[in-house]
Amino acid sequence: MFISFEGIDGSGKSTQARRLADTLRAQGKSVALTREPGGSPGAEEIRRLLVEGQGERWSPETELLLFTAARRDHVERLISPALARGEHVITDRFADSSRVYQGLVRAENRRLVEALHDLMIGIEPDRTFLIDIEPDVSLARGQARGGAEDRFESLGLTFQQQLRAGFLALAAEQPDRIRVIDGRGSQDQVAARVLAAL
Amino acid sequence: MFISFEGIDGSGKSTQARRLADTLRAQGKSVALTREPGGSPGAEEIRRLLVEGQGERWSPETELLLFTAARRDHVERLISPALARGEHVITDRFADSSRVYQGLVRAENRRLVEALHDLMIGIEPDRTFLIDIEPDVSLARGQARGGAEDRFESLGLTFQQQLRAGFLALAAEQPDRIRVIDGRGSQDQVAARVLAAL
Ligand SMILES: Nc1ncnc2c1ncn2[C@@H]1O[C@H](COP(=O)(O)OP(=O)(O)OP(=O)(O)O)[C@@H](O)[C@H]1O
Ligand SMILES: Nc1ncnc2c1ncn2[C@@H]1O[C@H](COP(=O)(O)OP(=O)(O)OP(=O)(O)O)[C@@H](O)[C@H]1O
Ligand SMILES: [Mg+2]
Ligand SMILES: [Mg+2]
Repeated sequence: MFISFEGIDGSGKSTQARRLADTLRAQGKSVALTREPGGSPGAEEIRRLLVEGQGERWSPETELLLFTAARRDHVERLISPALARGEHVITDRFADSSRVYQGLVRAENRRLVEALHDLMIGIEPDRTFLIDIEPDVSLARGQARGGAEDRFESLGLTFQQQLRAGFLALAAEQPDRIRVIDGRGSQDQVAARVLAAL
Repeated sequence: MFISFEGIDGSGKSTQARRLADTLRAQGKSVALTREPGGSPGAEEIRRLLVEGQGERWSPETELLLFTAARRDHVERLISPALARGEHVITDRFADSSRVYQGLVRAENRRLVEALHDLMIGIEPDRTFLIDIEPDVSLARGQARGGAEDRFESLGLTFQQQLRAGFLALAAEQPDRIRVIDGRGSQDQVAARVLAAL
């Protein structure tokens, strides 16, 4: 089974992806836990190109091509081989992140994102968990760890609210694949909701 | 006017692109002379990713996405702005190189190359000069300078012969845009043929 976790910055994706991997492994299952952007050595190199340097260094379209190149490598070298070996794959972000972020940065690029995905990626998770939370809650959590606030400051709370709305709209479009998980409460509570939805 | 030079390794593309730029400038025209892969700072960074490291590091499809990202940046940041300012743009390689190289590496990828080009690049040179030469002639020239032989050795003379056939087939498909220039003889002779065909 191929599973992805999605959601705004600091919503709890990495925490819940790890917990689900732990739970499945405790049941004796083989699980490959991975993340985007990156996930394979080649994709990590492209990720470095994307995160280093000035924000305006690449246009949204060039950035989209670089993300797609990284995802192609990730799928070829890690996700598809693991699925072929019969392992479960859990990824912290996948194509939905591109759909939502790129759709916000330049609305008319949603069409490009889909066309590129169909052409060069093709696969979709069997199940996607959207960890849904109000941006001010995840901001408050982030303040306890440091780091995430930078992104909130640089991108703004309004941007996070738009991201949240974008993820929810996507979930409404594809209710069979994307399950919205209430991200409030303790890590245990959220993990229990993910398991119940699985 | 947007002009590209194409051809196999060591055929004389860089030499003839430079000479045509010099000739047009001597006539008082503004010319932007550029090359691929690279040509703009962002594209040069992607080029570095492509040329460094092991040969098998990226699959042909990931490589194609990286080349397309570099080309998108090159078009956005250099080619389109120069054309908009009324300058002539001369580029040493453009999309035809991807068509021919990728088509050889994996024949079924020709369809992907075209689809990606239509989706993310769109523009085509007004005129393309294919400097056509037998691989053993350009190999002999290369031996006078060093460097090119490495590529001939690593890719093989047979590969260069297939490249040449691929470029000629492309020219036959698009005779209005692509002009085949006999690459034999002195640099002056080839330059005169380019000017006559312009
Ligand atoms: N249910 C929860 N309650 C309180 N804190 C939480 C909860 N889940 C995660 N956290 C904490 O909130 C922070 C963000 O969680 P996590 O890193 O899992 O989110 P993320 O969605 O992966 O974030 P990013 O977008 O930065 O990758 C971490 O410090 C984590 O320990
Ligand atoms: N007409 C010519 N006669 C003899 N030597 C030539 C001629 N044109 C170019 N050369 C020499 O051949 C070599 C290859 O030329 P050039 O670099 O222009 O080719 P290129 O197609 O750009 O090669 P590459 O694929 O390596 O970029 C250079 O050393 C150049 O000086
Ligand atoms: Mg995370
Ligand atoms: Mg050259």
